[in-house]
Order: sequence, then structure tokens, then C-alpha cells
Amino acid sequence: MAQTIAGPEIERLIQLLARLPGLGPRSARRAALHLIGRREQLLGPLADALAVARERITVCSACGNVDTSDPCTICRDPSRDPAIIVVVEGVSDLWALERAGAIRAGYHVLGGVLSPLDGVRPEHLSLDSLVARAGRPETKELILALSATVDGQTTAHYVTELVRHLPVTVTRLAHGVPIGGELDYLDEGTLTAALRQRTPF
Amino acid sequence: MAQTIAGPEIERLIQLLARLPGLGPRSARRAALHLIGRREQLLGPLADALAVARERITVCSACGNVDTSDPCTICRDPSRDPAIIVVVEGVSDLWALERAGAIRAGYHVLGGVLSPLDGVRPEHLSLDSLVARAGRPETKELILALSATVDGQTTAHYVTELVRHLPVTVTRLAHGVPIGGELDYLDEGTLTAALRQRTPF
Repeated sequence: MAQTIAGPEIERLIQLLARLPGLGPRSARRAALHLIGRREQLLGPLADALAVARERITVCSACGNVDTSDPCTICRDPSRDPAIIVVVEGVSDLWALERAGAIRAGYHVLGGVLSPLDGVRPEHLSLDSLVARAGRPETKELILALSATVDGQTTAHYVTELVRHLPVTVTRLAHGVPIGGELDYLDEGTLTAALRQRTPF
Repeated sequence: MAQTIAGPEIERLIQLLARLPGLGPRSARRAALHLIGRREQLLGPLADALAVARERITVCSACGNVDTSDPCTICRDPSRDPAIIVVVEGVSDLWALERAGAIRAGYHVLGGVLSPLDGVRPEHLSLDSLVARAGRPETKELILALSATVDGQTTAHYVTELVRHLPVTVTRLAHGVPIGGELDYLDEGTLTAALRQRTPF
């Protein structure tokens, strides 16, 4: 198809762009043309940024965060509370919590949640290193910041069992009404949880 | 925000990805993490493909197509009918027509359509080179393959006026029922056009 028209270089670029989440074959073609039409402003800078990322970005061997240093900026930050480890599924969740800015603690990126359907088993997650960190004398609390899905909660229970023998407190995020949420759009599970965990006003 | 967490390199990558059509800030973050997690399979190859594109992809000085050679593969193809020039708004339209494989002719990419609202005036389009090509003795027909929008049809009329003094036939794409289209979902304009341009069965 297109490779006979515009050459294999453009076709290869389109195929790679189509493998990004959120882009399909059609939007990958649009993105490729967008890039080609903006060589100096976008195509070149993006090529450079990817080359830098390939060379310098690494996964933190302590917590699983991505950064240009190992241990990562968060793990090396002396202003963070070393007693608390926030356990997240992925780096995007870590970023979301950091954007919220609600806690200055350490993190542990599991690299997924247990999912029998998707074939994700305990050995696929960074659980051994989590148990090792949880067993250190300075660690007092694990906050399980996992999705409120079946797989997320299964993982939360699994982690809790793994560290039961350790003198560490395990907590999880509160369930309830999202800020700005309208009651009549919420599901019954959320409303039930919000009622059960009601707080003094 | 994120640059204080993961370093300026990742933040820069996210900002550039967010400038691709179809990706917003949130999906750009997902795409960046997707790339970082697939260094060998995707991040590296995409960095290379973009570097190749930056170096080698150029705009055909004859027709406006993008290719690694100038004139482009289509303009140099001796098997194409030199009497016919298909006039399109952009390279994506050229690609769409080539995927359909319905005609083996030359193309002319206008680089847009006239749009008073968006400030696109005749001097922004490659009209001079189109008139020059239309005036060559071998050119017999211009097929205006422009969108059936107000701006597209305004542009079609403008082009027709520009070449009126030349011995060249100007045609446009037929309007009608799309293949696979259901009548009761079509607008009245399309149905009227399909009735007016009805063909013997």
C-alpha cells in the first residue's frame, strides 16, 4: 500500500507511531504527516528527545520509577519520609500521586497487578523487593494505592499476606465520593463505601 | 509538576508527544511510559525512524508530495498518465486515493484549501505551480479531488477560474451515496446530488 507511494522510510515511521497507545493506523498517518511538515519545530526535537531518552532514562533499581539516575530522584530525596512506602501499579500512578502532591514519601512500583485472565502472576511483579523494603527497620507503613478494581484489590490482599509477618502497618486509599462528583452519577458500590467510611463534619 | 519528579528529559519527551495530533497531555504521558518501557522494541526504532525522516524525507518540488526523492516516486513513474493531474488538499488525501488504487495519474498537492475564516488565502496555496503544470501541452485534465465542504468547493471554483483560459478539462469527484451507505442515514444534500447524478443501471 503506502510504502509503494511514499517510500519505506515513511511507512516504517507510520508503523512505529501506530504502536503508541492512543494512535491507530489512521491517526499514525496523520501524526507522521504532521511531523514531516514540522521538521525543525517538532520532528527534529522529538528525534533528539527520544535519542536522549534511549541513552539516559533508566528504571530505579530501588523503587521501579523511571528517571535519569539510579536510585531515582525520589529515592535520593532526604526530605521524604522514609517510614512510608506508597505501593503503586505503574509509574503513571506514581506521577498522578506526585501531581496531587499530597504525600512526601517513598514509592514502590509493582509493574502491574495480579490478573489470572491476563496471565499476570506474582513472579511478574516486583514483590520480593517490596517485602525486602517492608522488612527494613525504618519502614513503618505501606500505603496500597492500587486501583479499586478486582485485580487491584486481589493484589492488595496478596501484598498484605506477604508482609503479615513483618512489623509494618498496611493501609489503603479511602473509597468515597470523588471531589466534584455528583451523587446520582455514582455507582452503588462507591456510595455504600462512602456511607460506611463517613467522617465527622 | 512532573519535571521535578522524573527529570526534564522525560518532561520534554511528554511535551513533544503531546503536540502530535490525537495525543493530549494525558495520552502523551501514557505514550512516553509505553516508549520508556519498550526501549529496544519501540523507543530506539522510533528514534532511528525519526532521525532518518529528518535527514531524508523531502517535499517534491513538482507536486508537493512527501518522499525521499525529488521529484517524488509518483512524478518519476513512467507508467502514470501524464495527461491527468489529480488536485488534492493534502498529502493524506493523495495517500487515500493511492490506497484506493483507482487512478494512475499525477497529483498536485495544494497544501490546504481557501478559508477566509482560518485566514488561508490564495498565496498560501501552491496555485502558481498548478497553473504552470496545467498550461503544459501534455496536460489534458485536472481532477479536483477536494473535500465536499464549503471551503473545498470554494477552492474548486477558484482553481477552475484560474485555468479557464487554458485548453484543459476540469472535472471533480462525483457526489453520491457512499459504498455501504444506508439511505436513511444520509443527509438531504447527498441524496439530492445522488438523484441528480443518477446513472443507467
